[in-house]
Amino acid sequence: MITLAVCQLALGVGDLDANAAAAAAAVAQAAARNARLVVLPELCDTGYVFRAAAEARALASPAGGNPTLGRWQALAAQFGVVIAGGFCEVAGDGILYNSAAVVDASGTLAVYRKAHLWDAEKLIFTPGDAPPPVVHLPFGKVALMICYDLEFPEWVRLAALAGADLIAAPVNWPAMPVPAGERPAEVVRVQAGASANGVFIAVADRCRDERGVSWVGGTVIVGPDGYPLAGPVVADRPAVLTVECDLSRAADKRSSAHNDVLADRRPALYGQVSQD
Amino acid sequence: MITLAVCQLALGVGDLDANAAAAAAAVAQAAARNARLVVLPELCDTGYVFRAAAEARALASPAGGNPTLGRWQALAAQFGVVIAGGFCEVAGDGILYNSAAVVDASGTLAVYRKAHLWDAEKLIFTPGDAPPPVVHLPFGKVALMICYDLEFPEWVRLAALAGADLIAAPVNWPAMPVPAGERPAEVVRVQAGASANGVFIAVADRCRDERGVSWVGGTVIVGPDGYPLAGPVVADRPAVLTVECDLSRAADKRSSAHNDVLADRRPALYGQVSQD
Repeated sequence: MITLAVCQLALGVGDLDANAAAAAAAVAQAAARNARLVVLPELCDTGYVFRAAAEARALASPAGGNPTLGRWQALAAQFGVVIAGGFCEVAGDGILYNSAAVVDASGTLAVYRKAHLWDAEKLIFTPGDAPPPVVHLPFGKVALMICYDLEFPEWVRLAALAGADLIAAPVNWPAMPVPAGERPAEVVRVQAGASANGVFIAVADRCRDERGVSWVGGTVIVGPDGYPLAGPVVADRPAVLTVECDLSRAADKRSSAHNDVLADRRPALYGQVSQD
Repeated sequence: MITLAVCQLALGVGDLDANAAAAAAAVAQAAARNARLVVLPELCDTGYVFRAAAEARALASPAGGNPTLGRWQALAAQFGVVIAGGFCEVAGDGILYNSAAVVDASGTLAVYRKAHLWDAEKLIFTPGDAPPPVVHLPFGKVALMICYDLEFPEWVRLAALAGADLIAAPVNWPAMPVPAGERPAEVVRVQAGASANGVFIAVADRCRDERGVSWVGGTVIVGPDGYPLAGPVVADRPAVLTVECDLSRAADKRSSAHNDVLADRRPALYGQVSQD
């Protein structure tokens, strides 16, 4: 059993110091509740609603020697946690990526570049070309993807096929209309992805309007049966959710006496899904 | 705009006459509310919980000259509807399939054999090897799949990539434990499949315990944004749900100024999804 934490933060675009302080405070709060893995939001260093690529570039840092990842490493060492969160990456060639990393006390274990870009991100970022990494940690195998990536069932499937027990998903979910009494579709898709693959999914969303954009605030931890273990928050306020989980449950893909959610696939019939 | 209907029926295994009468009454009720497409449950002629393959074989009929499909054709002619529903098929070689058909006044337009078998179905039926058919009807393009098929995002994606506006899904969802206050995971996965693909999904489930098996009763019509338009019923009672829809909405896959749920896919990165 380990304790997972997902942190819904009030971020502001360009507020690098305040954003870093909000992340550090949330990590400390999660650690005080015995969290071993702490998930932070997408672009949690810089904020999200850039006016143009130039603004993002002025705020971005390379993955190597990144000040945010360095700060997370120090927090990981101080509190004995692993941190998964999003940051604004500029590569050596000046290309911008909407990236995320898994960091422990030893440093950065994986960097992932968002492969499916949402809306105006396409005007700023270049999409990554690599599948979600799966990091082998002492308590389980943790995959990493970002926000709109989750809406592609193929991407969630790739992580599960690669052996992930849990998908850590930094997000910034812009609010969309939701019918009365319904749970936001973003959360519903996460629930479905978890149960279709028998994996845990831990989503850290954000809050506080930014340049007219408000957020789902859908921070949630979903179990491999597709039901929430903590959250969703669905409110415009900061939150740190924690829950004790046995990630090894995700290794058992049986769903009935004769079924296994991965082994029951018919990949030879799915050709069109991976053809242009 | 057309009216869709999904029918949750109280079926019994081996009660061929009563099952046929229940289906006919539901079609008449749907037609009285101006339905043009009527979806009936999985194995709606024979019931579901067979003791053994021999029992299913004794109740099954070939697709050609099938008495149930003949009855649906007569109902389609009488009421001016198209019917999509499940039936127990025995092929010329004696092989049993859990099948479904789309039938109009002119006859059977498509037959589909369930490709993903649930639990003890594996002891009775042979899985189909063909993708979900997409039938071009005057009011839209209708794909057909059955129950557990829906839990494979690749299968729903294939139907959407083949141009389906709506997926008609006969199901018999055995009831599983659901946490208090939660919507059954079967319905959640349908919502996610609809929104991830921008399609309508119309699910007809069943009710009435059969040999100790109870059912979700999750009959529902979901729109391309992933929210229910009618249902889910989630009760152990017969129901005919109808709703007016413009199926052409499914042709528009845009989800933001810069996004399209199908065009945003990265199929070149999804290879592992269709490899054994």
